[in-house]
Amino acid sequence: MESVINSIGIVSPLDYEFGNGDGGIGLDNGETFGPITVRYETYGTLNAERSNAVLVVHAFSGDAHAAGKHGSTDRSDGWWDSMIGPGKGLDTSKYFVICSNVLGGCRGTTGPSSINPATGREYGMTFPVITIHDMVKVQKRLLDHLEIEKLVTVIGGSMGGMQALDWAVAYPETVRSAVVLAATARLNAQGIAFNAVGRNAIMTDPAWNNGDYYGKTVPARGLATARMVGHITYLSDESMRMKFGRKLRERETYGYDFADVFEIESYLSHQGDKFVERFDANSYIYISKALDYFDLGDRYGGLAEALARATAKFLVISFSSDWLYPTYQSKEIVFALMKSNKDVSFTELSSPYGHDSFLLETERQATIISSFLDTVDGQRR
Amino acid sequence: MESVINSIGIVSPLDYEFGNGDGGIGLDNGETFGPITVRYETYGTLNAERSNAVLVVHAFSGDAHAAGKHGSTDRSDGWWDSMIGPGKGLDTSKYFVICSNVLGGCRGTTGPSSINPATGREYGMTFPVITIHDMVKVQKRLLDHLEIEKLVTVIGGSMGGMQALDWAVAYPETVRSAVVLAATARLNAQGIAFNAVGRNAIMTDPAWNNGDYYGKTVPARGLATARMVGHITYLSDESMRMKFGRKLRERETYGYDFADVFEIESYLSHQGDKFVERFDANSYIYISKALDYFDLGDRYGGLAEALARATAKFLVISFSSDWLYPTYQSKEIVFALMKSNKDVSFTELSSPYGHDSFLLETERQATIISSFLDTVDGQRR
Repeated sequence: MESVINSIGIVSPLDYEFGNGDGGIGLDNGETFGPITVRYETYGTLNAERSNAVLVVHAFSGDAHAAGKHGSTDRSDGWWDSMIGPGKGLDTSKYFVICSNVLGGCRGTTGPSSINPATGREYGMTFPVITIHDMVKVQKRLLDHLEIEKLVTVIGGSMGGMQALDWAVAYPETVRSAVVLAATARLNAQGIAFNAVGRNAIMTDPAWNNGDYYGKTVPARGLATARMVGHITYLSDESMRMKFGRKLRERETYGYDFADVFEIESYLSHQGDKFVERFDANSYIYISKALDYFDLGDRYGGLAEALARATAKFLVISFSSDWLYPTYQSKEIVFALMKSNKDVSFTELSSPYGHDSFLLETERQATIISSFLDTVDGQRR
Repeated sequence: MESVINSIGIVSPLDYEFGNGDGGIGLDNGETFGPITVRYETYGTLNAERSNAVLVVHAFSGDAHAAGKHGSTDRSDGWWDSMIGPGKGLDTSKYFVICSNVLGGCRGTTGPSSINPATGREYGMTFPVITIHDMVKVQKRLLDHLEIEKLVTVIGGSMGGMQALDWAVAYPETVRSAVVLAATARLNAQGIAFNAVGRNAIMTDPAWNNGDYYGKTVPARGLATARMVGHITYLSDESMRMKFGRKLRERETYGYDFADVFEIESYLSHQGDKFVERFDANSYIYISKALDYFDLGDRYGGLAEALARATAKFLVISFSSDWLYPTYQSKEIVFALMKSNKDVSFTELSSPYGHDSFLLETERQATIISSFLDTVDGQRR
């Protein structure tokens, strides 16, 4: 369905470094942390009034490369290329789209695998514990650097949705609208439990070595196991049944031996191995911990109280088969917004693809999102 | 709620060994396997007609010790003590209740941790791949030994429910009724996926050593991780929220450091460690593989065709918050039974406790089960 739409073309990642002189940002844990390098990309053109910027915030394992290719030989496009480009849901002929890798990540922005200038070695587990709000503070510094005072919208799915919510509450003067996809206002016990299993798998891998494995053997087994668990939570019973069912990988009938491998097993194992090539195990630990802490209402005395601070218009979308952040969790956000008399649109899209729906159900989301942004944009003019 | 009901008292586990002379049983993989020791317990008295026997079949990590205590200093009762005893759901003043540890287990019945008499060493990964049907065949040999030709019922939850289904189809002449709790007629891709993660965690633990760890260091880390994943699937979003929520273990407020441990994390970690003390990692691998293979209709050309062989009355119970084997999977069984004109009663019990509900919702199940058994018993008289 995306093939008829032109991609964004060749893009170059950019780096912004700050915090060398002023000591960086104040983290939720009380530390002042810096310097920080922020890897980001932009698509489209910032208008003369600097008023057409859209901030895309990525999910757990995402990065700054949201659209286009880094070179003509790139095998794949950015992770949300289907949504970002001329005429797409986030129309780059109208909007200047920015996406940056999160603090704590491993794809260009400062994280545990970055060199600590004070020691000349990777931070590893000396990296400070961070929160979703800390990620947002870093993004705010990037916007300041780009001299952007207002955002048409902050948009993201999953952990990106959490950042969008935090943005609207922490910087109401900056955020004209927020699009919250497949997200939650607080991680529940089940989500914390899955994260705990992932961290446990990494931290009990002897190669993890208390986080000090850079230049040595990485904790590949632990990280792959963590990813396998995570991946199950991104799919659904229904999508797995449709895609894999009970099919064996290389046989028609059961051999009743360990050469019987079901396709779903092989798929998950492949996903685990692929992930190890592109993701840092310590980043997994820190980012999952940031998710655990996420409870938007916590610092404001309640969710409605937190959202009362926002001045943005909200669009909240959930997906029927998402059991990681089910629809009732999106409704909690919507009800809290209504309680505070905020402008909120909500829809649950029926989809079999589980949590991953926000990445896969592009067409329906694009229609809803572009219409929503028109109403935000209309207010400006 | 159980405290008002007397327990079964002190029981002694028994062992039945067979297959030394005749070579054992024919497994689904084509091998003839033996000798096999079956660990079992019985509660109540077999009547003169040998017609009041009930077979209880256990779930993944269960064992033969279903009720009572092994000694007066035992800290806990058998795993289904709330259901088995005088006046309870399975009334031992009426029924002779039998429960045996499954083939492949590690609680008295022959499994990978047993000594292979041919080598004098533990089987480890030379143990044959087994199926749910193989487990049932072993139980049939035990009944033959006990000279029991008819069972009032075969009853079990989860993997026990699968065995009950297999019993009714494989030995229709023996099974007068089957009680299938929180089960499925075939493991779906999501279930296979969770099992694959558990096996992966064990098999990537260096201590696993291709299954050859007996008398050495056991793969405790891998097995604990496997159990943590499994345990999440036994609970529900709702039950975790009620029991743990977002509470920290030893703090009131977040410290934003790794000493912040949520109660659910601590609970799962404890469950993982406890499991390692009582369960063998290779048994986890073999039993989870047996679950993966379970597809009742597979060898009969369809589920309805398989169930058409049964002559038993069926009672099927599912639980509203069970997302491991959700209600729709119980309904598949019920519809297939109806298609074959079988006598089936079905109910979905509303419960927040997820898959574990079959172990926790004793009172409501006991009422339904004892009434159901009265109708079976009535037919006999």
